[in-house]
Amino acid sequence: MTKENKLQIIPLGGLGEIGKNTTAIRYNDQILLVDAGLAFPDDDMLGVDLVIPDYTYLIENKDMILGILITHGHEDHIGGLPYLLRHLSVPIYATRLAIGLIQYKLTEAKLGQVTTHVIQPGETIKLGSFSVDFINGSHSIPGTVGLAIHSPLGTIVHTGDFKLDHTPVSGGVLDLHKFSELGDNGVLCLMSDSTNVERPGFTKSERLVGENIDKAFEDAEGRVIFASFASNVNRLQQAISAASKYNRKVATVGRSMINVVSIASELGYLDVPEGTLVDVDEAMRLPANQVCILTTGSQGEPMAALTRMAMHNHRQISIYPGDTVILSASPIPGNEKAVSRNIDLLFKLGAKVIYESISGMHVSGHASQEELKLMITMVKPKYFIPVHGEYRMLMKHAELAGQLGIPRENIFVAEIGNVIEFTSHGAKFADNVTAGRVFIDGLGIGDIGNSVMKDRTLLSQDGILIIILAFNSATSSILAGPDVVTRGFVYVRESNFMLDEVKAITRQTIARSLQNGIRETPLLQNRVRDAVSRHLYDKTKRRPMVIPIFQEV
Amino acid sequence: MTKENKLQIIPLGGLGEIGKNTTAIRYNDQILLVDAGLAFPDDDMLGVDLVIPDYTYLIENKDMILGILITHGHEDHIGGLPYLLRHLSVPIYATRLAIGLIQYKLTEAKLGQVTTHVIQPGETIKLGSFSVDFINGSHSIPGTVGLAIHSPLGTIVHTGDFKLDHTPVSGGVLDLHKFSELGDNGVLCLMSDSTNVERPGFTKSERLVGENIDKAFEDAEGRVIFASFASNVNRLQQAISAASKYNRKVATVGRSMINVVSIASELGYLDVPEGTLVDVDEAMRLPANQVCILTTGSQGEPMAALTRMAMHNHRQISIYPGDTVILSASPIPGNEKAVSRNIDLLFKLGAKVIYESISGMHVSGHASQEELKLMITMVKPKYFIPVHGEYRMLMKHAELAGQLGIPRENIFVAEIGNVIEFTSHGAKFADNVTAGRVFIDGLGIGDIGNSVMKDRTLLSQDGILIIILAFNSATSSILAGPDVVTRGFVYVRESNFMLDEVKAITRQTIARSLQNGIRETPLLQNRVRDAVSRHLYDKTKRRPMVIPIFQEV
Repeated sequence: MTKENKLQIIPLGGLGEIGKNTTAIRYNDQILLVDAGLAFPDDDMLGVDLVIPDYTYLIENKDMILGILITHGHEDHIGGLPYLLRHLSVPIYATRLAIGLIQYKLTEAKLGQVTTHVIQPGETIKLGSFSVDFINGSHSIPGTVGLAIHSPLGTIVHTGDFKLDHTPVSGGVLDLHKFSELGDNGVLCLMSDSTNVERPGFTKSERLVGENIDKAFEDAEGRVIFASFASNVNRLQQAISAASKYNRKVATVGRSMINVVSIASELGYLDVPEGTLVDVDEAMRLPANQVCILTTGSQGEPMAALTRMAMHNHRQISIYPGDTVILSASPIPGNEKAVSRNIDLLFKLGAKVIYESISGMHVSGHASQEELKLMITMVKPKYFIPVHGEYRMLMKHAELAGQLGIPRENIFVAEIGNVIEFTSHGAKFADNVTAGRVFIDGLGIGDIGNSVMKDRTLLSQDGILIIILAFNSATSSILAGPDVVTRGFVYVRESNFMLDEVKAITRQTIARSLQNGIRETPLLQNRVRDAVSRHLYDKTKRRPMVIPIFQEV
Repeated sequence: MTKENKLQIIPLGGLGEIGKNTTAIRYNDQILLVDAGLAFPDDDMLGVDLVIPDYTYLIENKDMILGILITHGHEDHIGGLPYLLRHLSVPIYATRLAIGLIQYKLTEAKLGQVTTHVIQPGETIKLGSFSVDFINGSHSIPGTVGLAIHSPLGTIVHTGDFKLDHTPVSGGVLDLHKFSELGDNGVLCLMSDSTNVERPGFTKSERLVGENIDKAFEDAEGRVIFASFASNVNRLQQAISAASKYNRKVATVGRSMINVVSIASELGYLDVPEGTLVDVDEAMRLPANQVCILTTGSQGEPMAALTRMAMHNHRQISIYPGDTVILSASPIPGNEKAVSRNIDLLFKLGAKVIYESISGMHVSGHASQEELKLMITMVKPKYFIPVHGEYRMLMKHAELAGQLGIPRENIFVAEIGNVIEFTSHGAKFADNVTAGRVFIDGLGIGDIGNSVMKDRTLLSQDGILIIILAFNSATSSILAGPDVVTRGFVYVRESNFMLDEVKAITRQTIARSLQNGIRETPLLQNRVRDAVSRHLYDKTKRRPMVIPIFQEV
């Protein structure tokens, strides 16, 4: 009996969550990886800088991986590469702008030797038993593609991030003809972007934002400070075009803004008229009505340039009355408060702030319900897997697909680590693989786990109280202390009385325990911790972390 | 020369922020207080339970205070009373439901002896040189009033929270006639609710929500779990009416839900048909299609009942496939992530979750732009002060008032602590008074200040590392240690090497310092802290709090 051929789809990130999009497509012993993204931490991931997928499955099967296919150059699709490529050496296939952004990243991570292949939308490549069509897409960054991955068991279509923009700012319209053609030829499985599935109707064209930006530049009297995601290259293009039209020089502020503008204009993806770009110091010397600043910080990130300006502690740029600040981005869920705070501060500095959703300064780069339906109708897949979204979004997308006639049993609402397996007999959930999230904090990758996070959460709520004493366990005598140190619990100066009580309870507890025959230091420490914790809770209704340290002298 | 008569408006909370609405109205040596609310903490107020205004001004002038006028029974208008009334003894004037909710609060805080006066909408009372009209309002809780405060120097109109609901669920329509009449007679200053000033058009009627609730109950097959703010009594009424119509018993879950339903129905503000209310245990024994649960947790609060159900650890209630969960509230800015998490979890448990804004399960209780314009046009004030809102909202409201013809110099965009002073010659900003925010954490009121908060923030980001040694400063010798304890920094088991390095650096730093003639323990501790912090940052790019403790033995 020969072994049955198997085609597997294995999501490792981006399902049941926003970000870190990463999917393995496996045919027998050959794996293609689609995207390798990162995610930004939730509020409850204290001190975490970035989140990447658990790469165990890929590392264990690294010899099978033929290549990494990148749909576009956003962080949630390429940001994991510097971490993944420490473990394996695999060529990357992507459009030119994405490769430019990836190479910058890898060089920074001292991984400059990785092989990269620039592909053109419309191109087809062969990798092992697979052949892959790169399909022209439409999104908020140029050089976005969808993928048709042909295998001996059938074709998988992955939309990547997309919207149907009939009047895009760059890169041509979503290749409807190709998706239709694939549908006509038979598609085994469609994986489609669920980000905006909760929005009815169609997503508006990026071109409309351009008109509103133009109007704002026309009306502006002082400087224009334009905040957006650096990765939204199409938006930056529209700001640069407006600046140029109204005779404003453009300076870029914030690390990612500087990098992206430099890479994208070098590669010809940004059309910047000669002499338009100036450095910040030069911009500061120009009359206010001749200046446009492109800045990071549209999400209210604490260290970003716009936040520093709002807090009046940016090294180079101050906000003056008469300046116009344009927030050309929607707050990502979780960032609303921080964004609002910046807006308030900018108003207080006298700026005109254009931010309301009704101001038309932002449209999404993702398809709404009607576009998602169109995609399903065009591709006519046998099986459907909603991707890129929280669980409720995947459910909603599954519901849409059901309404369009895809049988419920052919729709897989999957989680990361699930294996959706196709054979000549059908499709099913097979055994799971290792998947999860790995926290990056500073230089540490994955050294912050649940126990460390739990400690940080406890510390953040009620602080810490440390009881130190020098102890001789042979004689059971206290040689020095107890001393008490607290941080984040109470003002020490106002609470001397409480700390004296802690010392007294420590002494009493030790004495009583010794009377009861308890002499081992760890046991004594536990008793003191419990007694002190209980006392502090009774007195304050707070639960600081209590750490008794008995040092053997 | 006789002293000039002065009328002052002194906001102590609710301007430049959402919540803790509290305003002093002072005529010479007589003060009326309008509302005494609390606010909920922002994400960056770690471990804080509640926020109240700084009451210094009121405490210093307590003998001048004639009464506290309450516009309605929401926490952001009454929640500060248990804290304020520890310091002063003043009668409270409010409608019956508000008094009911206040008395419950005060009894809990052992302040049951406070004098309260039930007033009727439409009533006028005299207090010192003031007379006060209570004007029938319309909001999400019954018994909401606006105020006209007449003084010898003119009339101040305070809208309270309001919307213009032509088909309210209870309590009659906003008293347009009274506001118009006041306008005709001449109003010195209008203070108006800015909460929804960013929304164009009109706010929809509460009645519309009722129709959608009815539909959801009609369609529901399993239990209906209805989550809303307990304080949204009009919403609860609509859920109870629907439950009764479709023969479902109602159980209440969550402390505030139980209290509000009990108080409001006792006082006749909730119409609950005989036999409809059951306790949770009884509800659990009924067939699923005969049960409705009213629960707290619509904001994803970690300890609230709905969150516990979603996490499958509620003591009494589990979610089963077929249950319908209705989220009848919008996420307050900052709560979006937590709300989304609950929705995802509820979906995974098999519930049908009705939550999207397009589901029509919520309308705001606050006036949108057209209603705000109507209020200004009716009241025709000489001066205008936008209240209840973040700074950008107050600015927007000021802009609206300007468009309606109020001269820019007669509009005061104020912050808490500002004093807006009226004399027979005009109005101006006078000297500021003490104002601010006081944190409540457990039983502590105001003992958490900036330094404690800063420590909690540091602890939450990178944890703590404690270095302990027993030291004899006379001989400058280490008798025990150094020992190292960390929490929230790294996995200790994986990082033994790093902790050994910390010990070595500690020894070296002490030795080198002693060689350089530095013998004082505090100085030695500082040197060790600096050296260790530097080393850890180089190694990890993290900045844990480093605390060296040298215990004198």
